[in-house]
Amino acid sequence: MVVELISVGTELLLGNIVNTNAAYLSEKCAELGLSLYYQTVVGDNQERLDETLKLALGRSDVVILGGGLGPTQDDLTKEAAARTLGKQLVEDAHTRRRIEGWFQTRGITEITENNWKQALVPEGAVVVDNDNGTAPGLILEDNGKTVILLPGPPGEMKPMFEKDIFPYLNKKQPEIIVSETIKICGMGESRVESMIEDLIQAQSNPTIATYAKIGEVHLRLTAKAENETAARKLMKPVIRELKVRFGGHIYTTDDAVTLEEAVVQLLKEQELTLTTVESCTGGLFTGRLVNVQGASEVLKQGFITYSNKAKRKLIGVKKLTLKEFGAVSSKTAKEMAKGAILTTGSDVAVSITGIAGPDGGTDEKPVGLVYIGVSVKGNMRVEEYHFTGNRMKIRESAVVAALTLLRTSILETIKF
Amino acid sequence: MVVELISVGTELLLGNIVNTNAAYLSEKCAELGLSLYYQTVVGDNQERLDETLKLALGRSDVVILGGGLGPTQDDLTKEAAARTLGKQLVEDAHTRRRIEGWFQTRGITEITENNWKQALVPEGAVVVDNDNGTAPGLILEDNGKTVILLPGPPGEMKPMFEKDIFPYLNKKQPEIIVSETIKICGMGESRVESMIEDLIQAQSNPTIATYAKIGEVHLRLTAKAENETAARKLMKPVIRELKVRFGGHIYTTDDAVTLEEAVVQLLKEQELTLTTVESCTGGLFTGRLVNVQGASEVLKQGFITYSNKAKRKLIGVKKLTLKEFGAVSSKTAKEMAKGAILTTGSDVAVSITGIAGPDGGTDEKPVGLVYIGVSVKGNMRVEEYHFTGNRMKIRESAVVAALTLLRTSILETIKF
Repeated sequence: MVVELISVGTELLLGNIVNTNAAYLSEKCAELGLSLYYQTVVGDNQERLDETLKLALGRSDVVILGGGLGPTQDDLTKEAAARTLGKQLVEDAHTRRRIEGWFQTRGITEITENNWKQALVPEGAVVVDNDNGTAPGLILEDNGKTVILLPGPPGEMKPMFEKDIFPYLNKKQPEIIVSETIKICGMGESRVESMIEDLIQAQSNPTIATYAKIGEVHLRLTAKAENETAARKLMKPVIRELKVRFGGHIYTTDDAVTLEEAVVQLLKEQELTLTTVESCTGGLFTGRLVNVQGASEVLKQGFITYSNKAKRKLIGVKKLTLKEFGAVSSKTAKEMAKGAILTTGSDVAVSITGIAGPDGGTDEKPVGLVYIGVSVKGNMRVEEYHFTGNRMKIRESAVVAALTLLRTSILETIKF
Repeated sequence: MVVELISVGTELLLGNIVNTNAAYLSEKCAELGLSLYYQTVVGDNQERLDETLKLALGRSDVVILGGGLGPTQDDLTKEAAARTLGKQLVEDAHTRRRIEGWFQTRGITEITENNWKQALVPEGAVVVDNDNGTAPGLILEDNGKTVILLPGPPGEMKPMFEKDIFPYLNKKQPEIIVSETIKICGMGESRVESMIEDLIQAQSNPTIATYAKIGEVHLRLTAKAENETAARKLMKPVIRELKVRFGGHIYTTDDAVTLEEAVVQLLKEQELTLTTVESCTGGLFTGRLVNVQGASEVLKQGFITYSNKAKRKLIGVKKLTLKEFGAVSSKTAKEMAKGAILTTGSDVAVSITGIAGPDGGTDEKPVGLVYIGVSVKGNMRVEEYHFTGNRMKIRESAVVAALTLLRTSILETIKF
């Protein structure tokens, strides 16, 4: 089955936004085992949109169009699809009710007329509910061809694709595709790859792909089979083997769980309270933990001790330590974590101090040098890191390293 | 002049990488005042590449192809261009010497045979030196059409485009293009647009475009003229008018300056030190300020007072205040900022407390309710906000609102 993507939006042609939707949809199509030969971007222009859609329908079985479903006159995608397939636009009562409900929940009683344009659908189209906006997705089947219309905003498109479009396309295939993700922290990509070289070379079904994020590596297994049970059965021995090889470095096998969620969950399970003390990351680490809903159960407070004075006054780092070893030192990281425990009485403390650059580095203490301290129920551990990249990259690397060290330290404490 | 982009690379069709090159090149074309109607991505496949190039040459004056210039058998772009325009590939002596030099500088003496493929160019092509790799860029002019070939890696393509291709295209144009950006905070997009409706309707040269970010609106003016001086002259009265209309809401007219940079700069100029106290944003606000190099000059420390106990113990919010008004209240925001000043002796304090959701909202205090307090040299101000969106969006909106309120409060204090 050959699929093709068309992204609609003048803002893409002006370079105002990067087409991350195309990358996302292409990745999903590859996962589904679909052949994708073309991606096209076209503006909010009727003639060029019609022409592009016709060309695509001539050479592909499935055409996915993204964008141009909104309420303004610039939004032309639905009209182009209806025109090209020779369908009338008719009002969908279900969608009209959903649009009404959407505005009601937001306390808006006067709905401007142009919004009702979003309730018009080509006759015979399957309507796909949009849980994060007002424009529904649409699936049109005609003469052996399929046209799928998706909203442009990633926050609307992605959940809709995951929930409804992916299963729809998967069902159209003779064999279905099932994926599992194994998320690894505390190991670089090249080390992970060298540890599974033999598995990657021998792979056919399931396949294994590695994806590197800052401080993390994700392994994605994909199996093809007649049904889900058969696909999962194919993956089972490979997953078992990966668990043996990576052990505690695997923080989750659930694609939806982030590293900060895994860490907050671990703190909750162990009924541990946390205090943070950040210097070079300046709140980013705590901010990341607070992304997790319910983080307040474990995180009670944090200190951003950016200056030396703040390190002394707020959490009692010794003047002599700062003078002899410097603010960026193992000793200071240790006293920061210790001070946080003494000041607040929490079970766990994490401290981060480093040189994010671009200034402030020396031969002895170069830009990218970071110390992270973790104290769990009295067990203290301080690690030294050397990160590369710009100021932001170094700070983000430090945040992920701190999450990883915190997780490891808790797991070690549980063991004893 | 109509221009079109073709990105060549199977890795784009698999979604392994995001097509940032297309966004970059599109933005540059817009800057140049070129009309760009299509972007296409096609894989490393001879037939489909030929077909795509032919289609593009039929409808555009200039076709820019990116990628597929490397030394491997998969790299087919040069061959496709030569074939389509009916040119022979001939070895370019200058490029051969540059490739030799490239490897020599890197201490590589044995150059594998396939590398010489990169010295082959279509006869009559203008060779554009690649300062960051071995594959040169190429410009082909034929029958009133122009084909430009660029290497795929952004680190090679961008410097080459800036240095040689941009001036080449600008020279092809009868008029050049100059842009200026005006950045506005503390006003929504629709309000900004309604305030310049007359200017937008009357616009021709310069044009005005609005771009909305979370909590910010950017106005981009673009003028077309014979030379830069003439273009800037055209923009001058419009910029003056915009400054009158938006006054203190304009935080910069420098495209490179971010809101946090403008705020840190203002604090530095006024020699003010800052302490932050964050609840629902949990460090994000301070983390954003610390993005700015040299933030340590003004930011000495921050408190993340996530729990009620932390609000009381660390910065002295009264128990009675929390009990009577709640943690998310104007009174608590005020005491947080006041407590920060008393505890640390800094000149300025910013406090943020709110309900980021998705849980924790009530009829009286819904999700999205945020109070921000700012104290500047004893002048206290607390504002109430109602943000929408998910947990992350609400927290990011609060961060930008806090930056804006901090900026406004300092500017007001200076006035008196």
